[in-house]
Amino acid sequence: MPKKFIIAIDLGGTNLKVALIGRKYKILHKRVLSTKNFGRKDNLISAILEAINNIIRDKKISRAEILGVGLGLPGPIDIKKGIVHLFPNIPGWREVNLKRILEKKLKLAVFLDNDANLMALAEARRGRAQGLSNVICITLGTGVGGGLIIQGELYRGASFAAGEIGHLPINEEGPSCNCGGRACLEAYIGNKKIEERARVLFKRRISLEELSRLAKKKNKKAVQLWTETARHLGRALVGVVNLLNPDAIVIGGGVAGAGKILFDRIRKVILEEAMPVQARQVKIVKAALGNDAGLIGASLLVKEGVS
Amino acid sequence: MPKKFIIAIDLGGTNLKVALIGRKYKILHKRVLSTKNFGRKDNLISAILEAINNIIRDKKISRAEILGVGLGLPGPIDIKKGIVHLFPNIPGWREVNLKRILEKKLKLAVFLDNDANLMALAEARRGRAQGLSNVICITLGTGVGGGLIIQGELYRGASFAAGEIGHLPINEEGPSCNCGGRACLEAYIGNKKIEERARVLFKRRISLEELSRLAKKKNKKAVQLWTETARHLGRALVGVVNLLNPDAIVIGGGVAGAGKILFDRIRKVILEEAMPVQARQVKIVKAALGNDAGLIGASLLVKEGVS
Repeated sequence: MPKKFIIAIDLGGTNLKVALIGRKYKILHKRVLSTKNFGRKDNLISAILEAINNIIRDKKISRAEILGVGLGLPGPIDIKKGIVHLFPNIPGWREVNLKRILEKKLKLAVFLDNDANLMALAEARRGRAQGLSNVICITLGTGVGGGLIIQGELYRGASFAAGEIGHLPINEEGPSCNCGGRACLEAYIGNKKIEERARVLFKRRISLEELSRLAKKKNKKAVQLWTETARHLGRALVGVVNLLNPDAIVIGGGVAGAGKILFDRIRKVILEEAMPVQARQVKIVKAALGNDAGLIGASLLVKEGVS
Repeated sequence: MPKKFIIAIDLGGTNLKVALIGRKYKILHKRVLSTKNFGRKDNLISAILEAINNIIRDKKISRAEILGVGLGLPGPIDIKKGIVHLFPNIPGWREVNLKRILEKKLKLAVFLDNDANLMALAEARRGRAQGLSNVICITLGTGVGGGLIIQGELYRGASFAAGEIGHLPINEEGPSCNCGGRACLEAYIGNKKIEERARVLFKRRISLEELSRLAKKKNKKAVQLWTETARHLGRALVGVVNLLNPDAIVIGGGVAGAGKILFDRIRKVILEEAMPVQARQVKIVKAALGNDAGLIGASLLVKEGVS
């Protein structure tokens, strides 16, 4: 029987997305569950298994038609052994061999990777970075994640932990970061940090969406806040651009919703401060795949892992 | 006739080294000339040609025995077209197609690359990084140069300009750098910067060699100066380690002569501030090939370029 389906899973601190993927990475069916409903590790694993089995049953497909299961996960993974080292935002996970557990129960090939890596893979193969060899992908959310495409392939580093753009120090002194470091980019532009700064400027709680709307209407404080954010991110990217001389930097995640004001100012910082050869080369673009990037990346992981 | 020789050239702001390389990258003969003697571009090219022809004549070898000529050059190179974009420290070079000029005159295959890239290639194939897949090489001198080995190969980036570790900004505000950027690592730890700082601390001119000797004798000011240097470099490397998750960082160049005090303190900064998975993986080691790294790298460039 031809293997025409992939099951893709995107686990985040908030949502657990499970999808059935067909030819050309089309999402045929998708379910979004709340991660918090499942409490600790064993319940969450059971929920993943149940969601997969439900899709197989409801869609009346045979296991023989499924190429494999791909999971994007919010933490560092040993992709070779299939071990989750930990999830910074989901308690109870420490060195869990999730690949083995799932393969035993499902009798299907299972592939795991970090969610930011899968976003990068998705943008490189199916999104804004198609055809480019060397690309940095960044997701701006509660955390600042990153994935690197080097010579056309996902680059994972010596222990599969590469790509942590959120943990580039941008100053020698600065706020401590929950990675154990100091003055990391994430400690300046994680979405909670932006909201804190907004509360100081506006003297009230204000959402990122409102901040984006206000900036579009040229509200001074909102413009100031996005300029500061772009300046922190731009300075970190100057270093990455000088070091890696990439073709493009693809930026996604909720904070990227600020749009033109953020992107224009990031480009300005890079043109002014990165080295000329590298600055002229690099394009700064918005991610194309949005919320589905993780599911598409998980499908690509299965496809490239099996073949 | 078997191609048993390579001619290797290492051009720096101070010295022009020309060597005849035999089997197993053995340096059979080497000449060191002063770069400054040759003034501007055309004279320098003539000097290179003359030095090569002298070796061929004096050593009584035939062109048919020479695999090719490899040059390590102190600036950004378009290695595909063989064009020197510029040399920051040698005036008169702008978009010079040196490969074409030399091949026409020499009737030999000619390969060019940036000197820091060739140092990295040499350490990866014949020095401290043999057998490792992902390695950052740094040369600490007047400038701070770098070369990246990714998945076992020299990584040059989209326009052959990758590896510029000296131009990672380590602060958002800080001294301007002659690359056009600001607060670059090189603006803190280039050897002239270290000597300036030493002159302030000791209230006299003092060489790097003396600073190293004094630190070994536990002189407080010298220890302070190397600690500050290691702190700047270590903080820059925290970002590189988090981003690239390398197997090793190989450090060479004159400033690395400070030895244990410098290396111990760099390791400490990385262990304390880089992310745990990456910090545990990376080894910080001293370059093995010393002053000959450039010549060996130039030979490897020919060998790998021809085959």
